[in-house]
This record gives sequence, structure tokens and C-alpha cells, in this order.
Amino acid sequence: MSDATASGVRPVGVAVLGMGTVGAEVIRYMTENAEALAARIGAPLALRGVAVRDLTRDRGMDPELVTADPAALVARDDVDVVVELMGGIDLPRPLLLDALRSGKAVVTANKALLAEYTDELADAADSTQSDLYFEAAVAGAIPVIGPLRRSMAGDQVERVVGIVNGTTNYILSEMGSTGADYSETLAEASRLGYAEADPTADVEGYDAAAKAAILASIAFHSRVSAGDVYREGISRIAPADFESARDMDCTIKLLAICEKLQCADGTEGVSARVYPALLPNSHPLAAVGGAYNAVVVEAEAAGRLMFYGQGAGGSPTASAVLGDLVAAARNKVGAGRAPGESTYAALQVASMDEVATRYHVRMRVADKPGVLALVAAEFSNHGVSIAQVRQTEAETPEGAGEDAEPTAELTVLTHLASERALADTVSALTDQDAVTDVTSVIRLEGMDTE
Amino acid sequence: MSDATASGVRPVGVAVLGMGTVGAEVIRYMTENAEALAARIGAPLALRGVAVRDLTRDRGMDPELVTADPAALVARDDVDVVVELMGGIDLPRPLLLDALRSGKAVVTANKALLAEYTDELADAADSTQSDLYFEAAVAGAIPVIGPLRRSMAGDQVERVVGIVNGTTNYILSEMGSTGADYSETLAEASRLGYAEADPTADVEGYDAAAKAAILASIAFHSRVSAGDVYREGISRIAPADFESARDMDCTIKLLAICEKLQCADGTEGVSARVYPALLPNSHPLAAVGGAYNAVVVEAEAAGRLMFYGQGAGGSPTASAVLGDLVAAARNKVGAGRAPGESTYAALQVASMDEVATRYHVRMRVADKPGVLALVAAEFSNHGVSIAQVRQTEAETPEGAGEDAEPTAELTVLTHLASERALADTVSALTDQDAVTDVTSVIRLEGMDTE
Repeated sequence: MSDATASGVRPVGVAVLGMGTVGAEVIRYMTENAEALAARIGAPLALRGVAVRDLTRDRGMDPELVTADPAALVARDDVDVVVELMGGIDLPRPLLLDALRSGKAVVTANKALLAEYTDELADAADSTQSDLYFEAAVAGAIPVIGPLRRSMAGDQVERVVGIVNGTTNYILSEMGSTGADYSETLAEASRLGYAEADPTADVEGYDAAAKAAILASIAFHSRVSAGDVYREGISRIAPADFESARDMDCTIKLLAICEKLQCADGTEGVSARVYPALLPNSHPLAAVGGAYNAVVVEAEAAGRLMFYGQGAGGSPTASAVLGDLVAAARNKVGAGRAPGESTYAALQVASMDEVATRYHVRMRVADKPGVLALVAAEFSNHGVSIAQVRQTEAETPEGAGEDAEPTAELTVLTHLASERALADTVSALTDQDAVTDVTSVIRLEGMDTE
Repeated sequence: MSDATASGVRPVGVAVLGMGTVGAEVIRYMTENAEALAARIGAPLALRGVAVRDLTRDRGMDPELVTADPAALVARDDVDVVVELMGGIDLPRPLLLDALRSGKAVVTANKALLAEYTDELADAADSTQSDLYFEAAVAGAIPVIGPLRRSMAGDQVERVVGIVNGTTNYILSEMGSTGADYSETLAEASRLGYAEADPTADVEGYDAAAKAAILASIAFHSRVSAGDVYREGISRIAPADFESARDMDCTIKLLAICEKLQCADGTEGVSARVYPALLPNSHPLAAVGGAYNAVVVEAEAAGRLMFYGQGAGGSPTASAVLGDLVAAARNKVGAGRAPGESTYAALQVASMDEVATRYHVRMRVADKPGVLALVAAEFSNHGVSIAQVRQTEAETPEGAGEDAEPTAELTVLTHLASERALADTVSALTDQDAVTDVTSVIRLEGMDTE
């Protein structure tokens, strides 16, 4: 990667911000595959520098390339493409804006930044007709952004449903196969390195919500940010929920769902939401286990497509970053530009109240005559239609006296119902003396019949 | 789709050659989604004409747009993109060469033409820096060419394995679930419209081989044509093979396999081959049933990715064509160019003799002492290592006299062996008196252990 090349072609200058696992892998591949990359780009890549926080650590590379001043690196005249892998929002944001406004291409894996500030970044890119690439921000190595932006560009996407967070998918897969409870499985995941010390962003669905915002924006040519995404985490999921799932030939997955829908005012809108849901074992996403990711795209002409692969990790993420880097560099050598942000459709984001899903409701009720009729009436009163009911004898709770009233467990599967109607039903049920407890409410997705 | 637009933007002129199922769907989507497509492209598409063979048929469109003279349509000054959906080789070939040489972009679904004449077409495209797109040529709606060309451009692809022919996948899926034999299932597939009147191109693997050539060329930046692809069809597959498959927790799929390998002379080469193979049920491709297609890509950094969806049909294929059309039109509006043919790696195509796979060999042998030892010795003599052997009593063949010698069925699963060594073993076995018949030889793919 030197400046002077035999052919005299001007190299494409690259600045890498951040040298964690992904950054180190990107630099390694840039070096090891330099010849192949040059052939594909039409010019060699030249690494101009790597910005790190801690200058004292040995990075195993020419120390002259390492700097603690990312702004100065980004501002260099011989930098054409800025690869941002530092994470966070406040630190990279001005750096990337500066890069784009001075006509440099940006490649980033920073989903949090994108989900919050895509508009600002896109405007900066448009101001100089520069490129903003972020395939690695969603689903690691799996090409999803590229296919949505380019391959589906002639089609009408109707829905995107993905398993886009490896940590929660690992935890749910484990809970499903071992029968262990949530906190136990989370602790195990932390020990194995599948969950971070502070797992909140993953287990509470913030990470998946940022990705859902990015997916929805691109799929529906509208602007959806992380705050627009309805979000529930997985911490309430209990072993009993997996038992219910098995009875229904389902599994439980944390899904990121983006879909077009009709809003209450009759206009077309977008729903973006993240929650754990029952999913039939026959659904293509049901078999996606462990730390894998997959995204299903449903489009008018294409029908159902699925993209599957490793959603995280140094090498897989580096693969996506490098693909973007080659594309950005090709555009620097030629005169092309990647598809920019496209928000012409400007669909409004629907509130969760406008979304209809199916619900699986589990409750403990008094085991006496008339209770089933009473429960059924509450659903009916709120306009929620019941698809299936199952009543099983419940064990007497521990510590209950001998004269404790006997209880039964009742599970109800509804047809499509609105969030509002279901919430009202649950609230009314809770007020009933005969209902001891509404133990869990989980949505059911991916059933073709309603 | 008129010439004069309110914004004054010059429209992108489109010529469609061929108006079968796919062509009709492309034109329908172009018309129905004109506004969305214009927003994504930055200019409206204007349909300049449709070339058909039979002018007398009512196409349900402005008759002035329909022509029987494709050459004149392609030559029009106001045509910027030529969409070729007529099929065949001799008729479209000069048309597409003319289009590319006069600086027009070409979008085609013609795998047979591409697998034979990619070099010529690519040279024509390079001569004017025009675009040649062909996502629809492989695996219908599933984005495979785009991801390989763009998303994987920074990675090193090691292997591409696909189920890329819906007809054979339907037949094999049916044989696996019904136990029916090949010709019966083919007849049923024809009746249901899953197989053409002359099914040769599908069932003998020619269609899959053309797609393998295209995939191998792109994945390995080398030139592989249809004739370079080793090819076996599915007509020899018998119900007994599916029984063996079930015993091994496998299924049987027609696979298109493209991989890098070390050639006999020590250089790196490419193998491209198509044949029915045993595949473990745990392999992601094993669950791809019916008329679906899927492609697994294994790359150095990305690991294993899978792309899944509908591999044929009017709408799905139209989706891929339209995605390419939007990309080509965007490049006409901007100044970009799609990644052109990249053959810098120039890997040689390895002969089948250089490929090592595992084999499942089924034979009828005399049921007497010493036969197993003799069979084992023949494998060993030819350097083929045996992984598993199973011997079962065979029924006495119909019509055999009472004094017919009793026979047994012997199945042998080998470790990795070369094509040559296995062929020599089979030939030697056939010469043995104790071996009545080598009934079937099927390769085993997708096992991680060897």
C-alpha cells in the first residue's frame, strides 16, 4: 500500500477511525488482500492512518500510521474514504459530517449514529454528492442494505422481518433448548462472551430498534429514526412461555418488524417495532439459532426472500465494511455515486395503536364454574376475537395455605387485534376477582392465517 | 411515461425485447409503479417499444409501441437501456452487442447467452463503458449477482453452492416425500407446469450448469463458461437412493458447486460442477423445497451466508430485472457505471479429476463369504478410503430361477476421493464376478467432517 504504483494510478486514501476487533480485521484484510482489492477497484488502497484512543498500546503496525487525532486524520487531503468503527455518537458525528461535507466518502458500521442522525449525515453527503455506506450497521456480514437499496429498487417492499441481534437470539435459543430461565441464561451468555457486561442495549431491544429504523427507512424510502420504533425486550420471557410455544409448534424470537400499513386516517404508513414473538416452527426465521442473524424481505413482485448469515464478530463485520470500502473506492476512481438517501415516499410512522397483531395471553384464574365464560366475555367486550383457548390445572402456589382456592391456567390465542384493544382487555381481566394474574402477553407473528 | 416531464428531466428510454411472462410483468410494474421508479432513479422511465415475434396478438397496450423489428428498436437514439427477455442465443446476441457497442445499457435474464458469450458481451460493454446487468439470470428474484459483485467485493469467496433449478428441486423434493420414481414424478411435474414439454435443459443439468458458470465467473473473478462445468442430471436417481439418504439423515439435491481449489500443478484453480448429491438434513440447503432456490456463499471473512427465495416465475424474475433496470437508469442519469466484468484472477478451470468428493456407492453382490473383503480390497487398491459400510439382504430378483444365487445389497460411503480413483474402483468392482451390479454412485456434499 504505497503511494507510487507501477501503473501510475493514484491510490485511494483510506482513514480508519477506531481499531477494535472490526478495525483490526479490516486493516488486516486490506493488507493481506491488497492486490485483489486493487484489481477490483482499479486502483490500490493506501492506508493513510488509524485513529485510536490509546496511543501507548502496540498495534503491531507502523507507529507513524497511528494517531490519537481523528479530526486531523479525516481532514488530510490524501484521505478519500473515511471508515468509522469507533462507535458512540458524539465523537464520530462531527468527524463524519466534516468528511462528507469535504467530499469524502464515509463507510460506517455505527447503527446508533445512523438511527439517530441519518438525515443530517444524508444531507451532508448530498451537499457534496459523496457516498455514505453502512452495510455493516445491520446484520453484520449479511448483505441486506445493498440488496434493499439496489436489488429491490424496482420492486415494492411490503415487509421486512429480521432477527438482527445475536445476543438475544443466543439467549432465546438457549432458553428454548435448556428450559433455563432468563437471568440464568443471560449470566451464561455473559460468561461465554455472547453478552456484554452491560447487556441493556441488546436485551432491551435498543440495538434491534436502531437496526429496524435503518431497515424501515431504506425499505420504504421514508425517514424512520430509532425513537420511532416501538420496543420491548426479552427479560419478561419465562420458561413457561417456551412451553406454550412448544405446544403451539412455535418458538420465540426477538423480531424487528418493518411493514407498510394503512393508518387510521386512511393514509399509507410505516410500522417499525421490536419485540419477542411466538413464531411458527415452519417460518424460515424459526430455524435461525444461536448468534446467527437473518432478514426476511417480502416484496410485491419478488415474494419472500431470506438473507442469512453471521450477524456480528470481527471478521464478518469486516467483510461488510470492506465491501462498502471497495464500492466507495470504485466510485472515487470512476465517477459514480451510490444510491443516496431516498425519502421521497415520506410515509408517516404509525403508532403501535394502529398495528394489529395476534396475541397469546396466559393467566391464572380461579378454578370454578363460570370463569371461562367471564374471561371470554371480557375479550369479546373489547372486540378481541378468540382463536384458541386452553385450560390446564395449575399447581397450588408454594406457601399457599390448605384452604387456598384452587386455580387453573388459561391461555388464550387471539385473532388479529389492536394493541389498544388488547391492553384494555388485559386491564379489565386484571380487575376481575376470578383472574388471579395475567402472567404473560406475547404476540404471535408469521402465521399466514389470521 | 411520457417524454415531457414537469421537471424537464430527460426520461430514460427503455426498449424491452420479448414479451412473455417476464416481459409482461416488467412492463406492468414499470407502468403501475412509474412514480416510485422515477423518484428512485431521478428521472422517469419511458418505454420506447416492445419487440415481439407475433405482431397479431393483442398485448393489451398501445399498438404503436409493439414492433417485430428488435434491431430497429435497439438502434433508436432515444433508447438508453435495452431489456432482453426473448431468450435463445443467436437472435439476442447481435442485438445486445449492438446495444452495448453504441453505449446503451443492457439488462438481461438470458443465462444461456451469458454462460456462452460473457467475454464478448463484457468486451462490448467495456468498449463504451456501458453497463451489463443480469441479476435475473441466476436464481430469479434472489439477489445473488449483486451481492457477489458488490457486497462481497472486499472479501475472498471460497465456495458457492446453490440450488438454482426449480424444476429439478421440485422433482427431487417430490420423490423424497412420495417415494415415487423419477419418470412418474417428472410426468406429474409436467402436468402441473413445473417442467417444460422438453425438460432436458432442466433435468440434465444444463440450466444449472449455465448458472454455475455465471456464479463461478463472478465469485472468482475468472472466466468460466457453460462448457467448463462438469454436469450430471437427475434422471438416474432412484427411490432406493432416497432410502439410503434417509438412513444417513440426508436428502438429495441437484447442486451447483463453484469452489476454489488447488490444481494438480500446484496453482489455484476453480471447479464448477453440477450433480445430484446427498446433503445432510442439517445443511441450510436441505430444507429448500419445491420450486424454491437458494445459494450459499462461503467467504473468508463473512463465513457462510445464504440467500433464499423464488427462483423463477414471471413476477419474481421481473423483480430482479426491474432492480437492474433502476440501477442502469440511475447510471444514465448520474455518471456511474456498474462493476464491469472482472477476470483479473484468471484462475484456470480444474478438471473433474482434480476434484475430491465423498461418494455413496450402492451395489448388489453375491451373498457369500469373502465378498465384503474383496469389495473392501478394491476400494483400498485404488486409494479410496471407506468411511462406512452397510450390508443388507437383497430380495431375489423377479424372474430368477429357484437356483439363483442369493444376493445382498452393499452400500459404501467413502472419505474424500478423486473422481478418477472412484471411477477406477467402480470399473474394477464391475469386473468382479461376485459383484452383480453397481446400482448407483452418488456424491455426498456438505459434511463438515471428511
